[in-house]
Amino acid sequence: MSHYDQLIAHYQTIHHFNHAQAMLGWDAAANMPAGGSEARSNAMAELSVHVHRLSTQPQLEDWFGHAEQAPLTTEQQASLREMKRQWQQATLVPEKLVQAQSIAGSKCEHTWRTQRQENDWKGFEKNWKEVVALSREEAKIRGEALGLTAYDAMLDKFEPGTTTSSLDMLFTDVKTWLPELIEKALEKQRSDSIILPSGTFSTDRQKALGLEVMKLLQFDFNHGRLDQSVHPFCGGVPSDVRITTRYDEKDFVQALMGIVHETGHARYEQGLPKAFSGLPVGEARSMGIHESQSLFFEMQVGRSKSFISHLSRLSMDAFNAHQDPVFAEENLYKIYTQVEKGFIRVDADELTYPAHVILRYEIERDLINGVIEHTDVPDIWDEKMKASLGLSTQDNYKNGCMQDIHWTDGAFGYFPSYTLGAMYAAQYKASMVKSLDLEVAIESGDLSPIFQWLNDNIWSQASLHSTDELVKRATGETLNAAHFRKHLEGRYL
Amino acid sequence: MSHYDQLIAHYQTIHHFNHAQAMLGWDAAANMPAGGSEARSNAMAELSVHVHRLSTQPQLEDWFGHAEQAPLTTEQQASLREMKRQWQQATLVPEKLVQAQSIAGSKCEHTWRTQRQENDWKGFEKNWKEVVALSREEAKIRGEALGLTAYDAMLDKFEPGTTTSSLDMLFTDVKTWLPELIEKALEKQRSDSIILPSGTFSTDRQKALGLEVMKLLQFDFNHGRLDQSVHPFCGGVPSDVRITTRYDEKDFVQALMGIVHETGHARYEQGLPKAFSGLPVGEARSMGIHESQSLFFEMQVGRSKSFISHLSRLSMDAFNAHQDPVFAEENLYKIYTQVEKGFIRVDADELTYPAHVILRYEIERDLINGVIEHTDVPDIWDEKMKASLGLSTQDNYKNGCMQDIHWTDGAFGYFPSYTLGAMYAAQYKASMVKSLDLEVAIESGDLSPIFQWLNDNIWSQASLHSTDELVKRATGETLNAAHFRKHLEGRYL
Repeated sequence: MSHYDQLIAHYQTIHHFNHAQAMLGWDAAANMPAGGSEARSNAMAELSVHVHRLSTQPQLEDWFGHAEQAPLTTEQQASLREMKRQWQQATLVPEKLVQAQSIAGSKCEHTWRTQRQENDWKGFEKNWKEVVALSREEAKIRGEALGLTAYDAMLDKFEPGTTTSSLDMLFTDVKTWLPELIEKALEKQRSDSIILPSGTFSTDRQKALGLEVMKLLQFDFNHGRLDQSVHPFCGGVPSDVRITTRYDEKDFVQALMGIVHETGHARYEQGLPKAFSGLPVGEARSMGIHESQSLFFEMQVGRSKSFISHLSRLSMDAFNAHQDPVFAEENLYKIYTQVEKGFIRVDADELTYPAHVILRYEIERDLINGVIEHTDVPDIWDEKMKASLGLSTQDNYKNGCMQDIHWTDGAFGYFPSYTLGAMYAAQYKASMVKSLDLEVAIESGDLSPIFQWLNDNIWSQASLHSTDELVKRATGETLNAAHFRKHLEGRYL
Repeated sequence: MSHYDQLIAHYQTIHHFNHAQAMLGWDAAANMPAGGSEARSNAMAELSVHVHRLSTQPQLEDWFGHAEQAPLTTEQQASLREMKRQWQQATLVPEKLVQAQSIAGSKCEHTWRTQRQENDWKGFEKNWKEVVALSREEAKIRGEALGLTAYDAMLDKFEPGTTTSSLDMLFTDVKTWLPELIEKALEKQRSDSIILPSGTFSTDRQKALGLEVMKLLQFDFNHGRLDQSVHPFCGGVPSDVRITTRYDEKDFVQALMGIVHETGHARYEQGLPKAFSGLPVGEARSMGIHESQSLFFEMQVGRSKSFISHLSRLSMDAFNAHQDPVFAEENLYKIYTQVEKGFIRVDADELTYPAHVILRYEIERDLINGVIEHTDVPDIWDEKMKASLGLSTQDNYKNGCMQDIHWTDGAFGYFPSYTLGAMYAAQYKASMVKSLDLEVAIESGDLSPIFQWLNDNIWSQASLHSTDELVKRATGETLNAAHFRKHLEGRYL
């Protein structure tokens, strides 16, 4: 067996344990009774240790060295590159540091749950200091090994190839027009009257409606399911994709669009090429590209007038409420495109969301690069929030830098993916409309041409190309903010 | 770390992978869409290989050797004995034979599915020959290593300590009185009029009813769930026990008692001692003892008049049918104790079931011991079926020796467990009534004293003692058929 083939077999073995891990994780969120959690955590930790051991076996270095000398096809070269990338990611950071990060992250996250409620920055800061210090250490080690700056090395974990300089350029562009666009949209919507849903929307009916919408989006039920969990997510494996949502019986709006969003993630997974199944090159390209699929489904398809017309009809049927003005197309469209300035990123609408992400990006970039200290964060947050959305977070830590869980365990470098995804999605659409009429396809109820485009250009390409190359092949240009701006102006002006 | 402690750590590691395996198996039966099955099979096969590798690591022999010399408490000795037992079971049979069995078993089982429908003994026999030959080889290897006869070595896999001579004694006893008892019961029931359920019993309501019955049986929902699958089973892990059932919307009777049965298995698992969690000594004692719990729940509790009174009330509530005579106590009791001679073991009632098992036991015993050949089986089956239930299976292979899946993949030695379980259950009850009034407890709706007895005598004892010792401690005597006879005579005469 050639070294290349040995690597292929080895990574397929790793994939089988990752399959188990993915399903246990999904089950823990969707099914498991509380009393099962301790044993489950132990089993999952054992699997993690085993996968880490497999991923860092000493002979891999030798195998990679030999395989790189062998004559390989272009696809094999891509496959080798992606295996090596995963190997480097697994071996770069010393196990001792990973453990220290895990302990510090758990501690910070655990105490954050009550500290946030109590707006206790002083308490939080003491634990977070350690998390930041360890992330800086990680960034330094990764950066030195990969020849990248500290923060670029963290970006590389989630968005290989993306750099601070490209993000600075994109986000600086957005900052020149976004604040004014938000003001104009708010002004335009000021006189809108919206009828908000009220009353009981049973979980059963919401689920039935969700399944109808998934059918419209051609989710493959032979290779996946819809279930419930506290935090909606897309999990499982490509041949069996498990998406979840959370139902609020007082309001169906969020769960419904949440299903559209997760279906975007799911169809990407379901569309990954079978030929590379179980191999790194057959996996999704990056967090940002994954988000580009969920956001294409949600923002480019889901919140379009033509799609909301389907949602109107289907929800009237589901709730047997054909006369209820809540479900009227125009009203639903207003609900799904309402702009509001707020403190909380996860509650933000399409238009204000990038402001949250850019603020977050700028802070974590400077924090990891050592330009600012963790104690500077609240003041800088307040300053930037005032500049972008006109909101002060002075002494309001719980709605400022303590608002969500991501930073508590050191997930620095991850936030830009959200807005990159939204930008990619807008750019795909701009390219797609050159060859097909999106509105007509959506109106007809047969969205196949849209999915065919995504399949040809994104899903089937998995990790064969770099992100830049993938996007250039799909759209003819590398990522820029122009299409995103045009999309937002078209919808909100 | 002492060798004993090394062994403890090693078996806990194995347990974590078994946890993953158990949950993936449950998910495959209860949730997985068909398209997910190939990837799931691959992942589960990888886990099996890994568990087998861990279970047969060369250093284990050395560790066991040293640990056996060390000073250990009585409990530690039991723990060591059970770890060693699992190690022996894993190492006794050469991997090559296991693989050959797996291939021959899969082939035989796969073709059996159509051969059974077509009553094609000639076709089946060709594949089964190999399965029988390989099982004989396995039995010989096991027997030589353990100092047991061939069939006893197969029994040892499922019922450690049980021998052909003890089974012969028990079953010979049963055969002296069972045929006459069946005739008398049939005669007694001849004039009974039974109103059978008809109409629609929705899955939702049947499930709600099942959950109520599980509450009455004090199933711990913080450590388990009820779901659906084609073949009902009890899976998962002790801290998270997953039972399943299958609903027939035309009839609620089977699913309901199926839930009672599986709840018996589940409470045994939930009651296993936490102190030995993840270790062989903390696992259920044997297949027969497991079946004794499900059959205690089903036969000693579930089909008693006092429990059927609860089922009557709860099912009337569930189906909102308080006037329907189907649900009347007397009618439900008649349904649940109806005796009928039939070909098929899995459809058999409490009274005729042992006849099926004894027939099966006698044939597989002689087959594995080389007393008969696989081609003799149809004739012997016919002869024994005529003798025990007066039914001929001449040329009727599909309702004779080809009726179920167990023999197709070589599960010889397993069948006696079913009737052993029923006998143990009757013997527990005979002992239990010395200290508590079973009927009063059931009638009151608080069955705690019954569960306390089972917990003290069976569940909490896990595998600390041999089966004989366990039963002797619980009931004051080793297993005999007298209590089983008395129970059946009491119910059916």
